[in-house]
Parts: sequence; C-alpha cells; structure tokens
Amino acid sequence: MAEKRVWLFREGNKDLKDLLGGKGANLAEMTRAGLPVPYGFTVTTATCWEYVEAGHKFPKGLLDDVKKALADVEKRSKKQFGNPKNPLLVSVRSGAKFSMPGMMDTVLNLGLNDEVVEGLAELTANPRFAYDCYRRLIMMFSDVVKGTGKDDYEEALEAIKHRLGVTFDYDVPAEALKELVDTSKKIYKKHLGEDFPQDPMVQLEAAIGAVFESWDTPRARTYRDSEGIPHNLGTAVNVQMMVFGNTGEDSGTGVAFTRDPSTGEKKIFAEFLLNAQGEDVVAGVRTPLDIMAMAKRWPSIYQEFVAICKQLETHYRDMQDMEFTVERGKLWVLQTRNGKRTAGSAVKIAVDMVKEKLISVEEALMRVGPATLDQLLHKRVDRDQVKKQGTKPVAVGLNASPGAAAGIAVFDADTAAARGEAGEAVILCRIETTPDDIHGMLVSKAVLTSRGGKTSHAAVVARGKGLPCVAGCESLKMDLAGRKFTGPGGEVVKEGDWITVDGSSGEVYAGQVPLVDPEIGKDFQAFLKMADKVRRLGVRTNADEPGDAAKAIEMGAEGIGLCRTEHMFMAPERLPAVQEMILADDEETTAKALAKLLPMQREDFIGIFEAMGGRPVTIRLLDPPLHEFLPHKEEILEEFFTLRAKGEKKARQAELEAMLRRIEQLEESNPMLGVRGCRLGLLRPGINEMQVRAIIEAACDLKKRGKKVAPEIMIPLIGIVTELSTVRTQLEAVAQQVMKEQGVKVAYKFGTMIEIPRAALTSGEIAEHAEFFSFGTNDLTQMTFGYSRDDAEGKFIGRYLDMGILAESPFNSIDEAGVGRLVELSVKEGRAARPDLKCGICGEHGGDPASVEFCHRVGLSYVSCSPFRVPIARLAAAQAAIKEQGGAQPPAVAAKPAPAKKTATKKAAPKKATAKKATPKKTATKRARSK
Amino acid sequence: MAEKRVWLFREGNKDLKDLLGGKGANLAEMTRAGLPVPYGFTVTTATCWEYVEAGHKFPKGLLDDVKKALADVEKRSKKQFGNPKNPLLVSVRSGAKFSMPGMMDTVLNLGLNDEVVEGLAELTANPRFAYDCYRRLIMMFSDVVKGTGKDDYEEALEAIKHRLGVTFDYDVPAEALKELVDTSKKIYKKHLGEDFPQDPMVQLEAAIGAVFESWDTPRARTYRDSEGIPHNLGTAVNVQMMVFGNTGEDSGTGVAFTRDPSTGEKKIFAEFLLNAQGEDVVAGVRTPLDIMAMAKRWPSIYQEFVAICKQLETHYRDMQDMEFTVERGKLWVLQTRNGKRTAGSAVKIAVDMVKEKLISVEEALMRVGPATLDQLLHKRVDRDQVKKQGTKPVAVGLNASPGAAAGIAVFDADTAAARGEAGEAVILCRIETTPDDIHGMLVSKAVLTSRGGKTSHAAVVARGKGLPCVAGCESLKMDLAGRKFTGPGGEVVKEGDWITVDGSSGEVYAGQVPLVDPEIGKDFQAFLKMADKVRRLGVRTNADEPGDAAKAIEMGAEGIGLCRTEHMFMAPERLPAVQEMILADDEETTAKALAKLLPMQREDFIGIFEAMGGRPVTIRLLDPPLHEFLPHKEEILEEFFTLRAKGEKKARQAELEAMLRRIEQLEESNPMLGVRGCRLGLLRPGINEMQVRAIIEAACDLKKRGKKVAPEIMIPLIGIVTELSTVRTQLEAVAQQVMKEQGVKVAYKFGTMIEIPRAALTSGEIAEHAEFFSFGTNDLTQMTFGYSRDDAEGKFIGRYLDMGILAESPFNSIDEAGVGRLVELSVKEGRAARPDLKCGICGEHGGDPASVEFCHRVGLSYVSCSPFRVPIARLAAAQAAIKEQGGAQPPAVAAKPAPAKKTATKKAAPKKATAKKATPKKTATKRARSK
Repeated sequence: MAEKRVWLFREGNKDLKDLLGGKGANLAEMTRAGLPVPYGFTVTTATCWEYVEAGHKFPKGLLDDVKKALADVEKRSKKQFGNPKNPLLVSVRSGAKFSMPGMMDTVLNLGLNDEVVEGLAELTANPRFAYDCYRRLIMMFSDVVKGTGKDDYEEALEAIKHRLGVTFDYDVPAEALKELVDTSKKIYKKHLGEDFPQDPMVQLEAAIGAVFESWDTPRARTYRDSEGIPHNLGTAVNVQMMVFGNTGEDSGTGVAFTRDPSTGEKKIFAEFLLNAQGEDVVAGVRTPLDIMAMAKRWPSIYQEFVAICKQLETHYRDMQDMEFTVERGKLWVLQTRNGKRTAGSAVKIAVDMVKEKLISVEEALMRVGPATLDQLLHKRVDRDQVKKQGTKPVAVGLNASPGAAAGIAVFDADTAAARGEAGEAVILCRIETTPDDIHGMLVSKAVLTSRGGKTSHAAVVARGKGLPCVAGCESLKMDLAGRKFTGPGGEVVKEGDWITVDGSSGEVYAGQVPLVDPEIGKDFQAFLKMADKVRRLGVRTNADEPGDAAKAIEMGAEGIGLCRTEHMFMAPERLPAVQEMILADDEETTAKALAKLLPMQREDFIGIFEAMGGRPVTIRLLDPPLHEFLPHKEEILEEFFTLRAKGEKKARQAELEAMLRRIEQLEESNPMLGVRGCRLGLLRPGINEMQVRAIIEAACDLKKRGKKVAPEIMIPLIGIVTELSTVRTQLEAVAQQVMKEQGVKVAYKFGTMIEIPRAALTSGEIAEHAEFFSFGTNDLTQMTFGYSRDDAEGKFIGRYLDMGILAESPFNSIDEAGVGRLVELSVKEGRAARPDLKCGICGEHGGDPASVEFCHRVGLSYVSCSPFRVPIARLAAAQAAIKEQGGAQPPAVAAKPAPAKKTATKKAAPKKATAKKATPKKTATKRARSK
Repeated sequence: MAEKRVWLFREGNKDLKDLLGGKGANLAEMTRAGLPVPYGFTVTTATCWEYVEAGHKFPKGLLDDVKKALADVEKRSKKQFGNPKNPLLVSVRSGAKFSMPGMMDTVLNLGLNDEVVEGLAELTANPRFAYDCYRRLIMMFSDVVKGTGKDDYEEALEAIKHRLGVTFDYDVPAEALKELVDTSKKIYKKHLGEDFPQDPMVQLEAAIGAVFESWDTPRARTYRDSEGIPHNLGTAVNVQMMVFGNTGEDSGTGVAFTRDPSTGEKKIFAEFLLNAQGEDVVAGVRTPLDIMAMAKRWPSIYQEFVAICKQLETHYRDMQDMEFTVERGKLWVLQTRNGKRTAGSAVKIAVDMVKEKLISVEEALMRVGPATLDQLLHKRVDRDQVKKQGTKPVAVGLNASPGAAAGIAVFDADTAAARGEAGEAVILCRIETTPDDIHGMLVSKAVLTSRGGKTSHAAVVARGKGLPCVAGCESLKMDLAGRKFTGPGGEVVKEGDWITVDGSSGEVYAGQVPLVDPEIGKDFQAFLKMADKVRRLGVRTNADEPGDAAKAIEMGAEGIGLCRTEHMFMAPERLPAVQEMILADDEETTAKALAKLLPMQREDFIGIFEAMGGRPVTIRLLDPPLHEFLPHKEEILEEFFTLRAKGEKKARQAELEAMLRRIEQLEESNPMLGVRGCRLGLLRPGINEMQVRAIIEAACDLKKRGKKVAPEIMIPLIGIVTELSTVRTQLEAVAQQVMKEQGVKVAYKFGTMIEIPRAALTSGEIAEHAEFFSFGTNDLTQMTFGYSRDDAEGKFIGRYLDMGILAESPFNSIDEAGVGRLVELSVKEGRAARPDLKCGICGEHGGDPASVEFCHRVGLSYVSCSPFRVPIARLAAAQAAIKEQGGAQPPAVAAKPAPAKKTATKKAAPKKATAKKATPKKTATKRARSK
C-alpha cells in the first residue's frame, strides 16, 4: 500500500523536508502558522522515485490524488481550473531536500488557454497582462516541460519590439502581445509537431512529469554522485494557486522586513507597488511606495499585514524578509525567510528579541556572526557612494587590518612622523615596514605596503593599533627613492597626493572616497555582556603600551595576554642606548647601556600596570634578533661603496666598515630561526635581567602605592626544557633581589610561550618549570608549516588558495590538523604535569572566531587578541560554549510550536491518521479555554 | 642476624657488585678465574651503611671478621701483618657500586711501623725503598685517614730535595728518606697531637673506618642527591696484600695487552721493568724491556705468564690489559680489564675471536663502536709525530667531516678549480660555501670555512664526498679580498701557503704535518658482512652522481636513499640554462630553457641508474629556492654603486639594476621557510615535469637495453596532503606520457619527504598518496627546534653544549623527545593508512649510530647516509638489532662461568652455604670428565 502521495499545504510542517522537500515543507509551515499563503499542495519526493522506478510512469492513482487536491484548492480559492469566468491558475515548482543545479525550476500560469486568457483579460480589465501571462506560459512550458529552449520565443518578442521601436517589454501593448501569443503557438507547433495543449489538466500532468524527469537526468545523477546525495530521494512537486497583484487598483505587490534590516529598529520596513506583479518590483522601473501609503489606502489590509508580520516573527522567532501580494483586496503572503541584516541591526534585533522574550540569550548570541562585528568597529568605505561615483581602486592588496582611511601618501617613517605630528592626515607607504618605522606608523591614518602578508610587521602592528592596513599590494611599484608609487594601470601617486586605503577589502584608491562612521552603541554593549555571561574562555588583549591597554579594557579585555617589549626598545629616544648595548664589546659598556634603559622600561611597565588596574599582564621578554635594532645593511653598503669609488672620507669609510662588520656578525640566513627569544636571553642575560628588574620594580612601586598588580613574566621561544629552567633560575634570583631591595613582596608568575614545535612535543617536562603556557600560534604555524610569514602570504599562499591546496590561510584561522594537534597535545600533557597550568593563546588567531572555538574546545584558559578584536573573541567564545552544549535552546516561556518528531518524516501517513483521531482532544482544549 | 660482612676474594664473583662494589667484585672474579691475584678480602657495602646507621660505629663483631680474613691472607701469603721478619703489608681501597667523586681513595703499605720498616729494608736489601714506603704511608694515612692534607709532608720532601740539589724524588737517597720518615712523624704529631700509630691493626681499623666515613660526607650526599643515587648503598672496603716488584733482580713489574692493541694481531704485547714498582713504569724514566727479555731471563715465569694471558682471554672473553708484578720469582696479576684498542685492532680482534669460537658474532659486533670505524676510512694526522715536533694548530673549528689533508690555501672556487685541475693539492678556504662553490670543492683536498655548522653546506658536501672539512672556524679572520686568513694568534696564511686541515679534530695547521693512511682490509670486510647478517634495517646512501654511487656500493650501500638534483643544476655548463629558465618571463622562454636541461638531466640519471645496477634510487625533485642559482646580491650592489658613483657605463648599470630587481623579487626573509621544494614545483611546474621526464626517459633507456632500474621519485617539502596529491597527479601524467612515447613500461614509485612538522602530524592522510616516506631529519630538526642550521651551530649550539642546555647537537644525533616523537608518530600513522609504506631516513642522522638505533627501534625500512658512513650505519644497525633481542649472547660452545643470579646480591650468605653443599656435584662433573 503506497504512502500518501499528495499533501495539501495545510497538512504538512517544516520538519517534513525529507518528504515534501525544502520548499514544500516551508509552504506547509507558513500555512500551518495561519498565514494567508496561496493554496496548493505538494506531491512527495517518494512519489518521484516511484515514478522513476516504475520506468518513468505516473504511479497508479496519482492523477486522482492530484485532482482531489486540486479540487480542494478550487474550493478554498473559489476559482476553477480551466473556467474562463473565474479561472484558477497554478504554478508548478520542483523542491528537493537539497537544492540541486539542473533541476526543473518553475512553470507559471498553468491553466491558461485560448479561452481562459480572454476571461482573465476581462476579469482583470487588463488584456495586456492576460496575453503576457499566456505567451509566457507557452514559452515556459515549451522550454521547461518540453525542453525546446526559448531562443525562438525571445527572438519573436525582440522582433516585435524592434518593429514597434520600444526598448522595454512592458512598453509592448496588449495587441502586440496577443499577436505574440499566436506567433508563440506557431513556434511551439514547429518545434514539437503538435499544438500547445489547451486542456489545463494535460498541462498540469505534463508539468509534474517534467519535474520528476528532471530528477533523473544524467547531469543530476553526476551531480548527486559528486556530492554523495542518494539517488532515491526524489524531488517533490509543488502546485500552487497563482495570485496577481496587477489586477487593478485594489491589487498590489511588495516586499517587507519585519524590522529595519540596517538599524534593527522594531519597525516594519516595506515597499510596495500598486497594481503590479513581483517582476515590476525587481525591475525597479516604478518607484515603490512607502508602507504608510498602504496604511492610508487600505487601512484594514494594513492592519492584517501588521498582524501577519507580528505573527511571522512569533512563529519563526526571527526577523523575516517576506514577499506579499494583494489581489483584489485580499492579502497573500508568497514567501518568508529570515532577513539578511547588517551587523549593527543583527546586534540590536538579537538584544531586543531577548527583551521581548522571543528568543533565549543563547539564540541571540548565535544569531550574529562574530566576524561581522568588525564592521561595527571601524570606519568603512561608503560602497553605495563609491559605486554611484564610478570610482575604481588603483590597486588591490591584502586586507590586512580592517577599516578605511584617507590621507596623503608619504614614503618614509620620518616624513610621516613630521607631517603627521604637524596635523596632516598621512598614510605611510612602504615596501614593507620594520620596527623602526613604528613612530611613522603611529601617526599615520593607515598603512600601505607592497610586500608582506597579513601577518607581516605592518599588518600586525596596524591591527594592534586599529589602523587600517593594506599589505602585500604587489601590483604597486613602490619607488621610495622617487617618493611615489605606480599602479598596475600606470597611475602615479606622488608624495603628498591624497589616497584612501580600505583595509577591510584591500582596496587602494587615489584621492578621497566617501567613508562612513563605525556603528557602536548601547545595544552592542548589552549584547557583549550577554556573551560574557555565557562564555567560559577568558579574553585578553595584546597591548604594548598604556593607550592600547586602556582601549582594550574599553573593548572588554580581562587582562593582557601579550605585552611585547621590543616596541619599547624602538622608540627614537631609546634606540641609541639599545644600539650602544648591542655594539658593546665588554660587560661594562653593556651594563652602562642597560642602566640607561632600566628607568625607561620601569616607567613603561608602571604605565601598563596602572592602565590594567590589577588585571593580569603577561610580559614577553625581548624576543626579536638584535640586528632588527641596527641600520639596514644596504644603506650602509650604498654609502660605503659610493665613498670608496669617489675616494672620499676615509674616516667615514672606516666607521662604516666597522658597522658593517657588526651587522655581518649578527646577520643570519634565516633570522626567524636564529638568535632571538630565550636564545638571546641565554647569550646576553643582561637584557632579560634588566627587564625583569624593571617589571618587579614597577610592580613594587604600584604595591607601595596600594595598587593591585599581577605581572606574568613570559620567556619566549623555549624549545628545550633546560633553556627554561636555566633562564627562570637566573631571573627568579633577580626578582627576589629586587623585592628584597624594595622591601615589598609582589606575586608574579613565570611562564613560557609555546611557539616551537619541540616545546609542544615536550610540554610535559616544560610544564614542570612554567606556571603558564601561552601559545604563540603565529610562530608555531610558521614552524609547523615551514612558512616564513613575511614571504609566504605574498609569494605562495595566495596561489595555494586559488589552486584549492589550502582552504584557508593558516595564519588567518588555526590549522587544526597540524598546529591545532600540537596545541591540543601540549595542553593535555602540560596539564597532566601541572593540573593548574594556565593556557592561553596570543597569536593572531586569538581574534579569529573559528580559532576561538577551537581554543574553547581544547580547554584553553583564555585567548588574547588585538584590542579591536576583543569583542569578536567575546562573542566567538560564547558561541563556542553554546555549541558545546548542543546548540541554543529557545526560551522556556516562548510560544513555540510542538516540535514534530523526526520519525514523522518516514511515518507521515499513519501520523496524519492519528491526528485525525485526536479531534476529541482538541474539543477538550477548547472546553478548557472556555472555563 | 647480620649478613656475612667480610668476603675473601675467592668467595665472590663479578655479579656481586651491589654487595662488594665494582672493585671488590672484580678482584673476586679474577681470583675465581684462578689468577694469581694478591690475596685479600672485601668488607661489604651493607656493612658501611650499618656503620653509618649505628652512629658511625663499627658493628659488633666486624673487627673479628676482619681479623679472621686477615689471618687467611697471612696463611696463604706466608707472611704476617706486623712481623718485621716477614711482613705482610696491605692496601685499603674504597669501592662503591657507582664511582663517586670525593670518596676516599687508597692507602698503601699499611702494616709498616718503625720496626717493620727495618725488616723490610733488610728483606728487600733496599732501604731506600723501605723508607720511601714508610714515609708515604705516614703521609697518606695522615692525609686520607686523618684528613690533614699533605702539604706539610710534600714541603718537607721538597726541602730535602732542595738541600741535596736533586730534581726527582727517586734521586733522594735512603738516608735522606729515613730522615724524612722522622720529619713526617713529627708533622703527624704536630697536626694530630698523637704519634703515628705503630700498631698495624690500629692502622687497618682506622683506614677501614675512614672509608666508611667518606661515604657520608656532605659532599658525597650532595653528589648522590644530584645523581639520584640512594644514600643507603654504602661503599665496600678492599683490603689486599701488597706485592713489590722492586725487591731485587728476581722481581719486576709490567703491563701487558693480550693482543696487539694497535693492529689486533694475536700476539702478547707487553713491557716490563726489572726490579721496579708500578710507579717507575708510569714515570717513564727507565726504558722498559720487551716481553721477550722476560722469556729469556725467566723462562718458567714467562710460560706461566703466557698461560695466564690465555686464561684471562678465555675467562673474560676479550683482549685484556693487565698489570703484573713479579715478587721474588712469583708472578702476581694486579689488575686486568678489557684493553683499549684502535678501531682497526678492534675489528681484527672481533673477527679473530669469532673464528676462535671465543665469542659469538653478536658479541663481536657489540665490541666495536660504530663511530670509531670512521678512523678506518680516512687519512688522519699522525698525533705522535705532531706531538714530537711540538707543532700547534693555528686555530680550531668544528670537526665537520673526518679525515685530514694538506694542500695550498686558495680563497675562491674558481682558483681552486684552476689550480686543482692543474694538479696542485688545494684546500678551499671560504667564509662559507654555497652550491656554486661545488666545482672548487670537488678538486680540493679539504675545505675550511670560518662560518657555518656541522650541517652547513660545506660540511654536508664534504662529508658526502669524503673530503675532510673544518667548518665554522670563527676565530679565523677570513679576508677573501685580501686572499689570506689570519689566525687568532696573528699568524697569516696567504694564498698558496701550505696548510693542513684535520676534519676529525677540527684543527687547522700552517704547513704540512705528517699524516697516516687509513686502515682498511679484509678483516673489516669480514666484520661488516657479519653485521649485514644480523641487521634488519636497510642501509642506503646519499649520492648525487655515478662516482659517489659507485663508491657507496663499494661501502655496502643497498640503494640510493637521496639523490639531490640541485647539484646537477649547478654545473658551470648548465648554470646559464638554469638562469635563463629562472629569469624567463613567459612560458615559451621557460620551456626553451628547460628543453636545454632535459638531455643533460637524462644523462645524469642514466649514469646513476647504471652505477646502481637495479638497486632502488630515490631521486628528490629540485628542492632549493631559485635565488641560490643567481649571482650574489652584494656583488651586484658593489658593481652597481661603484659604477654609479663614478658615473660610468650607464648601459651596464641598467643591466645590473634589472638583475637586482629579479634577485629582489626572489629574495626572502627566511629562504629556508620559503619558496622551495614542492612549493616551487607548484608555482613553476615545468621544472618538475622536465625532471620526471628525464627520470622516466632514462629508466626506459636502461630497460630497452635489458638493464634493471628502480626509480623512486620523491616530492620534497610536503606539508599539506593536497600539495602532494596535486603534484603527484600532474607528474604521474608525465610519467605515463613518456612511457607511451617510449613504448616501454618501467616500475616506479612516488613518495615524499617528511621534513615539515605538519607533514609528520598529518601522516595518515599523506600516506594515502605516497608509496614511501623519507624522513628529512635535517630540515625536520630545523623546524621542530626552530633552528636555522646555517646559523645555529656557529652562533649558539656551541654555547648550549657548554652550558649543558643541550647534551648533544640535535643535528649530530636525532633528538628523540621532539623530532623522534614526530618520526615515530609519522611511521605509525603512515603505516596505519598504508601498511606496506616504505619508510627511510635521508638526513645526516642516517650515519649517526645512536640515530640509526633509533631508526631501527621505530621500525624504519632503511637509513641513508653519505657513502663514507655506510659501514658505520651497517654496524650500528646490527647493534640495534642485537640490543633489541636483549643483547649479545656468548657462543653456545664457549666455556663460560654460570651466571650468578641477581638475587645473589641480597641473599649472598645463604647462597654461599648452598655452594659449599654443592661439592658432591663438582665431584660428579670431574667423574664425568674422566670418562
């Protein structure tokens, strides 16, 4: 006995996707929600497979079932299929469980024939519309159902338009369309050797059969094989009454959002056109009316419309984007779906709906994509304006730090600093930046480099500072000496010319393009507070100075996860002492230079500790190789060779030669893998000792003034446990000594970065000497992949993404299979050795939502990211916690439809039967209510 | 009831180390072997701990046990302790299970007093000897037992020597020594407020107590804590009869090896001095006599001596180094131990002893240190000659490739090539070498660099070629432009001056120092064949050209594990085509350049395949970054800036600028982590395609000529499975195409290097696309540690070794905790995915014995190393297999003492009892023999 093959819309629900297809289940759900959905029915997916299995024949009895369902539609619509006086027209659409390319789409207006079309013309008093519907039916039927293609039909229309001298379809008058109907019928006969079927039931049967056939084409089979979709699912067929918004002044059509999709305001946002069909809205030829016009014109319809919007939100528990039509004074809802929205709107809607008790906090949090929050935190290019102006970017590089800014191009850090401090808006343009460009970057509105990836120095610093940055814009020819750059199209930008840099898209514009302000507000704050309640993962920030620290606290940071000390060494007034220390040949000179740096470092830390108000501050001891603090070799070479060739300035030559020798001594083939981090600390312990002294002196200073302070000293680049134990022993002595001198005890921790694969692999022994681990996933990614971040993104990662070798840059989102495996293993083995081991992440990944989720899953204590990504991390952490608990649940109090059981899909027919038998219970409910 | 506290030597055996200490067990074992060991006894380690626990008091009854044992010694020696007529003198020595610094050492000549010394003088007719013994006893007793130090005693001796005007102790006459005895007694009284004890038993008791005390000093406790040695072990005390070789013309003393320690010849090698004590032999003041002199003088003693040598070898089953003394015609063996020997001797002895059925093949193989084989494969500095000449090295660098060579210093590869090809012995001296120095290296006798580690380019190439190399000789100032180098002492070596480079020690000499030839021979061959029978691990070689391949086969290689193709690209006649290809802007130029290279590559592979005669050849596709094939940037910069400053040659300036731009395009911050290996292959697929074409064309060529060939194509630097699948798909197509063109089918494999940590971590999925894995442990070590091999060894690994942060450079021996863990995981997960996955290692570690053992343990299929390390790997692999099976077992037929059970240590006393009861069984054995 076959299962029920044809379901009226009002019989189904959204959980019957297997049986009714996505579209059918959706139409059923809307109907079930009590919405005025045009009547119709669905032929099940199982029937389609029956058809295929039976050798492409209609199963026995199907046509009767269809006719029965159609009779129900006729009854409810009070129209008749094929009756010229009061014609019911229907659409036929396929609707499988999974959307599939190549499947039959849509045939509209079935039920028209030579006679019915005249009736429709009369009924609507719109012959143009009626003939247009008919000629479209003939074309669609011929093309979609019979497979002829539609070129000949389109040609015929073009010929008429040409003859009449009109440009648009809607300018073709009724008479010409009537003529086109005749031509179309001729074309049909020419192609198919038979007349266009005048019997509506023949049309309908053919259309349903065509949908079934489209499931079993070779193309569809190949697609399913490649996607692993079973062949025996079949597609459903939806047959639905057509409604028309163009049947006179009491008709119309429109689209509506139940709340404002750009601001989130709880206010219906709708546009509609009087006496028009959906296509007219899309074509945009007439200006739509505001929804208030509807309120004035049709107050009762408007009331119903508002009620429906409310009902929709209550039913779907989200802001809806709906299509509606008014046909002769009757409102119909054609489609509804969750509406797309801006980040700001998403946040407001989520917060409001929690207040309205429509959704739970968890649901609200799951409704906003963490990455979209970025929009709320930076200025951005006004794309609409730019589009209108027709402005095109000069070049496109990597979108390395979000936000947009305009400024005048400058080509070195000193000029940037000078002009920037003089109040000009400057944008620093370099081939790439190094730590000694920092002073120039800090005063710039944005940074542009022609080399380097998203984790290049420029990108990292820019993100840390919230500066827009386009990096690795390789198509630009950067001519620093000539103080200009040239775009790939030959456009030249000279120093002082205005440019606009969009770090969100990677675009670089000549001149100033319009920008829009970031959207921040109390809703955003409220939203993030909800996230904080739900998340388990801590969120810290990467910040190197008090300003950043304060900004990060504003963004919700709970501590500093990474305070780099190298930028402190780069300040112009300190660099001489730093270089003196580097060039020192003996202990005494070294000590003298370090003594100069000590008070400055102490002040740095006092500032940061004060800004953080007792929150933990993880300070990384000096990490980069020393040569980064010396002048560039090529500059010295240029001066040296030039002087030598001219035979000039022997003394200066000797000086340069000495400097060169130093630089060469420090030179490394692969500085990334060289003397830096703890290696440097072990070779030149004085630097670390000075830093620890400065940290503890600063901490003592705060403590003496009654302030809270929680320093965590981080030893970088550990690969061998003995490195850590040696350095720690040496530095513990310094810390103890300082506390003795100061007569104050402060609590401090020692820990290490896990950024060398070997450290991760030997975490058990390392944890015995570390109170915390901080995963430096930038370096860990570099070494685990064997990628140099300064080169890889520009040189091959882009190609890898194009070729599909990488799905995502491992510098953007943590590579779970490789790098992640090391992190997981390290956390596990580290905690086995020291159960209270604090584990955090301080690589760029700390601000990437997918990576944050990973960090949550492997049980990290916190993530740390740049201040402007803190809100993103807070939300991502909350979402991770929600996902872990099996997803968001609706609020207990919310009105919600009883969820249909999963098994219903398979046992739909018997269930239906049970439902019918349940009628007495319904009565009981009514009785209960009436009490 | 206390356990037996005092053991006569004849009661113990070598397995009682826990109870008797190492020394005591050894003396017991010698006695047990029937050797004429001076009689004595051991006070057990347990007694020492009893003493400590009892509050530093002799356990009750101990002194009686000692006296009883002493009586036994008196009886056997026919001497009496304290009897001036026939005095027994004894030594007291400590002997713990583990040797420990700070423990009491030795007191000799106990039993002497004012009376006995006169008797001894008379008995030996050597008053000088007697007084010298006595004054030494007083000094040692005072110092060692009473802890006074010996400065005052030494001073008194010096005063006498000064007064007499003599230089050496042995020139001090008897009378003066008698006087020194008196002075010594006064010093003793002054220090200790009592007379030197005249009662020999008091002397003995005090000496035993002092040994016990030395176990429990704070210094000893601290040491044991740091080494994790339990405190309650205690030390044993050995009391042994003194024998004297200086009691007249019927006495003497000497040392002997049971076989020749330098050649291994089965011939006793001994030296002895008539009428002398051991010190005299050590002092080297009299020329010792040949052993044949003993044969002539004392034929019967000589017979006994020869018999003892044979007995010793039979008992210890190894060549012995023994000390002996003849006291008044009686031969005593004082000490015996396995003799130290040269590698050549070790090999010969091992082979001979197997033939003699004295040891098993496995034992023979375990007797030779694999690393020592290196001596047999290279010339070396004649240390004796150099010492005699008093020649000192100019500087010492890293011993990067073993062997020594002399030649004239040259400072660039072209000069080396020119003068070398003209027949001069040249040594290439560079700051560091690069692939384009290869032609100069190949004609050099040795290579010297002032920068770079043991895995620097120079070192790797040199080892591959068997060339001596001293690398990273940082104390040399290398002045390439000045064509000279200057040593740290100011010595200048100019181009054309002779130098000698010792790559085994790292020493660099000015001039020519005497060298000795490598020792190779049939014993060595026989020895390695034994190894081959035992080992499970395959041994391949790293070889890039037919010459190396042939050499490696001679050394026993079973295939090529790594054939690098970059050296082929470096040949001077090819470089232009290679550079043309690199500089090409379009497909066509690239293709043209590659077409030039194709026939050359094909010839390369034909040559190698032929040399390998069907053995597998793993060819790595081009790996290094392309910039390595271009000129050095600094050279171009020098020319460019010089021309510009002089305003000369505009055209050349433009040309240089263009070249610079190219170089800059290819420039990378960390080339090690940049575009190379499969990354290069994916960006410029033409290179790989040309190489695979050349490989398969070469293979087809051999096949057509009826020759066997087994190419294995290796794709380097895989980190992501999709890299491998993409490259492999593309190259399989080339291989298939070539075979179609050639009309021949050849079997080939595709595999990958595992040298990126991520590859190891994702081995399961990678193995699905690879038929073999080859662990590139050089790069894997670099990335797992985050070390750049070109910098790390020179810049910080040395310091790390000094500081104890590293126990060994991870580039020398595989780091099991980190790199090894990745290898193990990779093998396991790779084989889980593909059970027949062939796994090898082709890093430098393939020739390091400890690493070979690791490779065996984790189940690799083979190791691959440079040709000259193949024999080392063969032996190391055999030893690994033997260790895995629980160590070497003696041959079934060999006479061997029944091994004492472990439990004997704790239950020594009852066991002894059992042994006594077993006497009837012994008789039974005798009876059986007599049949």
